[in-house]
Amino acid sequence: MRLQLGACVVIVALACGAGAVIAGDGAPNAELRAWRQANEHAILDEFTSLLAIPNVASDRDDIRRNAKALVEMMQRRGLNPRLLEIDDRDAPPAIYGEWIVPGATRTLVLYAHYDGQPVTPSDWASDPWVPTWRNGPLGGDTRVVELPTGGAIDPQWRVYGRGASDDKAGVMAILAATDALKAAGVTPTFNLKIFFDGEEEQGSPHLQETLERHRDLLASEAWIIADGPVHPSGRPQVVYGVRGDFNAELTVYGPKRPLHSGHYGNWAPNPALRLARLLSSMKDEAGRVTIAGWYDDVVALGDAERAAIAAAPQPDAMLKQELGLAQVDALAPTLLEAINLPSLNINGLRSAEVGDKAANVIPVSATAALDLRLVKGNTVERQFERLAAHVRAQGYHVLDRAPTDAERREHALIATLVRIEGGYGASRTPMDLPISREVAAAVQAASATPVVLMPSLGGSLPLIVINETLGVPTITVPLANHDNNQHAENENLRLQNLWDGIEVYASLMRLQSRHDDAPAPNAD
Amino acid sequence: MRLQLGACVVIVALACGAGAVIAGDGAPNAELRAWRQANEHAILDEFTSLLAIPNVASDRDDIRRNAKALVEMMQRRGLNPRLLEIDDRDAPPAIYGEWIVPGATRTLVLYAHYDGQPVTPSDWASDPWVPTWRNGPLGGDTRVVELPTGGAIDPQWRVYGRGASDDKAGVMAILAATDALKAAGVTPTFNLKIFFDGEEEQGSPHLQETLERHRDLLASEAWIIADGPVHPSGRPQVVYGVRGDFNAELTVYGPKRPLHSGHYGNWAPNPALRLARLLSSMKDEAGRVTIAGWYDDVVALGDAERAAIAAAPQPDAMLKQELGLAQVDALAPTLLEAINLPSLNINGLRSAEVGDKAANVIPVSATAALDLRLVKGNTVERQFERLAAHVRAQGYHVLDRAPTDAERREHALIATLVRIEGGYGASRTPMDLPISREVAAAVQAASATPVVLMPSLGGSLPLIVINETLGVPTITVPLANHDNNQHAENENLRLQNLWDGIEVYASLMRLQSRHDDAPAPNAD
Repeated sequence: MRLQLGACVVIVALACGAGAVIAGDGAPNAELRAWRQANEHAILDEFTSLLAIPNVASDRDDIRRNAKALVEMMQRRGLNPRLLEIDDRDAPPAIYGEWIVPGATRTLVLYAHYDGQPVTPSDWASDPWVPTWRNGPLGGDTRVVELPTGGAIDPQWRVYGRGASDDKAGVMAILAATDALKAAGVTPTFNLKIFFDGEEEQGSPHLQETLERHRDLLASEAWIIADGPVHPSGRPQVVYGVRGDFNAELTVYGPKRPLHSGHYGNWAPNPALRLARLLSSMKDEAGRVTIAGWYDDVVALGDAERAAIAAAPQPDAMLKQELGLAQVDALAPTLLEAINLPSLNINGLRSAEVGDKAANVIPVSATAALDLRLVKGNTVERQFERLAAHVRAQGYHVLDRAPTDAERREHALIATLVRIEGGYGASRTPMDLPISREVAAAVQAASATPVVLMPSLGGSLPLIVINETLGVPTITVPLANHDNNQHAENENLRLQNLWDGIEVYASLMRLQSRHDDAPAPNAD
Repeated sequence: MRLQLGACVVIVALACGAGAVIAGDGAPNAELRAWRQANEHAILDEFTSLLAIPNVASDRDDIRRNAKALVEMMQRRGLNPRLLEIDDRDAPPAIYGEWIVPGATRTLVLYAHYDGQPVTPSDWASDPWVPTWRNGPLGGDTRVVELPTGGAIDPQWRVYGRGASDDKAGVMAILAATDALKAAGVTPTFNLKIFFDGEEEQGSPHLQETLERHRDLLASEAWIIADGPVHPSGRPQVVYGVRGDFNAELTVYGPKRPLHSGHYGNWAPNPALRLARLLSSMKDEAGRVTIAGWYDDVVALGDAERAAIAAAPQPDAMLKQELGLAQVDALAPTLLEAINLPSLNINGLRSAEVGDKAANVIPVSATAALDLRLVKGNTVERQFERLAAHVRAQGYHVLDRAPTDAERREHALIATLVRIEGGYGASRTPMDLPISREVAAAVQAASATPVVLMPSLGGSLPLIVINETLGVPTITVPLANHDNNQHAENENLRLQNLWDGIEVYASLMRLQSRHDDAPAPNAD
């Protein structure tokens, strides 16, 4: 029973090294690793078949095709799957599975999501729904490669496709980890429940109803979330919180019909310029949001959280180099501090056309897609109202729909500001709960490099819904490479990250109880 | 010989009414009108067949299909057509035709263009290449209608399609006017030459070479330009100038790859915000361009031009109502004054995606398509350099291509500013030349309402190339309805405007010499 023994060894080491380094050498996973190496091709066959099924949450037929495939994958593993439906039968179903362990006294839920962000295929280097292997990150000498039919596969290769990292990688790591345990003839140290969300990229608008409806089935002491990237340094991370998130769309108006920019230029107001002016008013040169009250609700980080951030590797210089940024926003001294503040981001701009399709017109409207991230203390409602109040303060008559002719006659400046369905607040689990430290230890047991412990991801998951509806903490254990182009074109997963993720989740399934009081700070 | 008689009557009236109203009652065109009424269906069959041929200038195959159709249309009329090719055989060919009149001592060229602006079919209410009739302007109760197979057609009906107004309407009016003269057994009062441009919407980059190459063939005393809309009041207009025009594209940059807006929001600079800030810096609240020196080169209007503007009907109030604008730019007191100043217009904005395709990303770049109109005194080169200097003054390193990695490391702010091929300066023909007054009189002879005389259109045509290359004046006689959605989706032509245009161009073909000194001011 090597897996169990290995995990125990590390736990002991951790207990002895209170306040110091959590470190492992990877050796405990030799049996697991051998299993993976012998099964790489089978794992990737199953993974790429899953990636080939389009999974944009708004396409309900595609979502159902994914759900059907996942139920079959779980059935093959004896995980007793079922769809967790609600009254709205059109909602993307969550998928439940379980591995009930006779005699187990603890229950944990492992979470991932199987839906993906929308795609613009023309922006992709290859079809987002045709999983495509390349021998590295796009650019330079990177080329498309074919997987060998057998033998070793270069772990630096990447598979490109929507969902490759966010978050079918999480789905696959969990399922493959159960295979690994079954192959080794071991069981989890707890009753294992699996929850695959089908609408996370839409903000999981039906999650609360799903949890309420299936509260008993989902009873557990904590949820572990398989989503997001590892630390930019490449080290594994355990993350105790996420930012909240919601989206809004802002549209301002020009003439009712597009006008010839010659015949009317200098006279008809240009909505693209109005939008530019309005957006400019929302932030200063440093990147600080200038909307009144934007930072008022923020609950400051505690000592443990500040210490963890200070002790974590700081990726700023490496990222600036990698991303081609000579200068970054000066809102906070470091990236890790910046993501613990609420943000206002422009996700996209659109007014008429640019490039080959551009015409000499004064457009009828201009639209910005906005993304608003929240931290502990913020609420969606208050932050949205601050945004709306700011638009009003710039002289705009603010509507939640397009203006009528009568409104156009009355108001020189009209904006449509719509909050997109499905936002949620931030979640932050204390870093010193027993489960918090047990998870850190289990991840460390699977990792040769020191684990980074983070108070919060910059990204968002609807964890507050789980915290508040079920009354349990959530802890995130990401696995994707940090440069995975999550949410954008050419999303990809580095193969080694999948292999590491399987080992990490297998280790988490063998999580050990511990009762020492040592916090688990970051090591360099 | 009614046509000739009719025209003469009006000329006499005009000569007697020096300094006062130019007015006609339409009666002189009875024979012409009867011909048109008897041939409406044949005219529209030919017109809609022409509209059904896609004509975006960048698609050279489509352009050649248009040219072939036009040559056939001119051959049927005995207009001796030929393509005016240049060394670059890929350039859209101009099409030449002629009606040489034995004994004529004067020669005039009539100009129109057969290419059209690019289209975004998804924005159109019907396919831009399937000419579609509706019983009025889009909106309200307007519906698609079928042309009757015979009998009268409601002249308020409109045909929708790219090029319907801009400028296949000009092509059709000229050709149908020759039919009308031939049917009446009369000839033009001058040697009539026809020039159909195939790349006007691209800025006619090959026009100068074409004129130089075919200088002798195109010898004339003046060009009359069939393009643009009539006055917004619905009255015919004769226009003595056009603004110059060129386009530029401005792109600013964020990270090299799209970033998850959660993991990097508050830290990675957002190019959409940078672009918003940069565009906002270019104009003040009144719509006045704040770029240094923008208005320095402007040659002020003369007394005659100012008087003509003051006397013209002022469409501002009507247009504000029609376009749903409670307030317009305050750069000049009126639209007619505003279009006699250089402009800077945002034709389009694009950064990542909005709407259903929006994703939670920090985009890699943001782009604005810009349109810069010029007036007499401006040059393309100086105005572009002022724009570039302004971008530099905002702290940007300005390139004419995407930045290299080394440039990204060195410069926090980088902009790509590209001047699009094919711009040209403004043209202004004096309003008191004999030909200027002869054209006004001929248009008036065909019109029941007083003609509006304008120093300049707000729109642009490459007339300065004709002025400078051939040394001849240009005078524009538009025919489209002002609300034709020129350059945008749902471009359309009101049928009555085509009928009026045919009568106007038939009258122009019977243009009479006159030598009185009376200017021809506007009447209300």
